[in-house]
Amino acid sequence: MNFSSKLIEEAVSEFSALPGVGRKTALRFVLHLLKKDKHEVEAFGMAFIKLRNELKFCAHCHNVSDTEVCEICANPNRDHSTLCVVEDIRDVMAIESTGQFRGVYHVLGGIISPMDGIGPTDLQIESLVHKTKEGAVKEVIMALSTTMEGDTTNFYIYKRLKDQVLRISTIARGIAIGDELEYADEVTLGRSIINRTPYENSLSVK
Amino acid sequence: MNFSSKLIEEAVSEFSALPGVGRKTALRFVLHLLKKDKHEVEAFGMAFIKLRNELKFCAHCHNVSDTEVCEICANPNRDHSTLCVVEDIRDVMAIESTGQFRGVYHVLGGIISPMDGIGPTDLQIESLVHKTKEGAVKEVIMALSTTMEGDTTNFYIYKRLKDQVLRISTIARGIAIGDELEYADEVTLGRSIINRTPYENSLSVK
Repeated sequence: MNFSSKLIEEAVSEFSALPGVGRKTALRFVLHLLKKDKHEVEAFGMAFIKLRNELKFCAHCHNVSDTEVCEICANPNRDHSTLCVVEDIRDVMAIESTGQFRGVYHVLGGIISPMDGIGPTDLQIESLVHKTKEGAVKEVIMALSTTMEGDTTNFYIYKRLKDQVLRISTIARGIAIGDELEYADEVTLGRSIINRTPYENSLSVK
Repeated sequence: MNFSSKLIEEAVSEFSALPGVGRKTALRFVLHLLKKDKHEVEAFGMAFIKLRNELKFCAHCHNVSDTEVCEICANPNRDHSTLCVVEDIRDVMAIESTGQFRGVYHVLGGIISPMDGIGPTDLQIESLVHKTKEGAVKEVIMALSTTMEGDTTNFYIYKRLKDQVLRISTIARGIAIGDELEYADEVTLGRSIINRTPYENSLSVK
C-alpha cells in the first residue's frame, strides 16, 4: 500500500503492530483519528505513554496496579493463605468478577512456552517459590489455560512447590454450566466423569 | 470490567473508541503495549499526535499529504483535465494501485448521508464545482460506492456539474473478473447486460 504520506505510513505501522490488526484495519483507525480534534488525539496518544511510564506492578502479586501494593493484596479481609496462580491481569479480572474467590493472586506474567522462547526464568516463578517458603501459604490453586503450555507450567510449578505447600490444586475442568452433554467434546466429558464430585457439594454452592 | 487501575481503564477507553474495537480487544492491545519498552510505547503514542498535528490536506484535491500540494497533483505528467471523484484516501490508494488511471483526484471526504447528518456542505463539493467552472476539466469520473448514499451523491454532483463539464461518467459496474455467472447477484448481472460493452473494447485492455 502506498499512503502518499510518511506520517500516515508511520501511524499505520504502529497500529498494525498490535495483535490481530492488519494494515487495512490500521488505516481505518488512522482515518478515524484524523476526523477527531487535535486535543482528542493528544489525549489518545498520551494515555498510552502515561500508562507505560506510571503503571506499577504490585510488589506482592505482580498484578498491574497504580500503587506499590495492589488493592487485593492490601485488603486485610482477603485470605492471604490461599494463593491463586494466573497468567495475567485478564484472568484476575475474570476470577474477581465471579465473586467466589476470597484469597489473593500470584500473576506469572505468561506461561512456559518453549516455542515462543519463554522459559521459567522469564516468569514470576522464583518469587512464587520464595513466597511459599515462608510457610504462610496453605493452598496454591493453579488457574492456567488447559493448553500444552498451561499443563507444562502447572507441572513445573507443582514440582517446585510440592514439598513446601500443603495443598496444590487446579481449577475444576468439566462441562460448562448450561451446556448440553451431546455437544461436549470427548476429552472434557471424559475428564468430568473421572473427576466427578459428590452430589452434596453441588447443593452447597450458592 | 474492573481493571484495578485507573491508567489501564483510561487506555482501554481510548482504544475501545476506535471503530470495531470492543473493551476485550482494547485490553488485549493495552497488555501488548505493557510488554513493550518505554521508548517503543512513546513512539507509538507520539506517531498519532504528530500525525494529527502535522498532516496537511492537498490544496487541490483535498487528499492527505505531507506537503501543501500532494504528489499526484504536483506531477506534470498526470492528465489534469480528467478528474476522478472519490470518497476518501483509501479509494485513491485502491485506484492508484491498479496503475490504470493517469488523471488526478478529487477527494470528497465522505458521501452524502442524511442518516448520519452529512449533507453536501460537509463535503468538498463546492470546491469541485468551482474547479470545473474554470473550464480546464474535460471529464469527471465518479468512483463512489454503489450504496444508496453513493447514488445520492452521484446524482447531486451530476446535477451541479452537468452544464459545465463535457463528460461525466461513473466507473463500470458488472461481474468481477474471475467470477462465475451463476454466483453473481441479479442486480449486478442485470446491469452488466444493460451496460454491455463492444467486444473490441475488451481486446484493447492491457
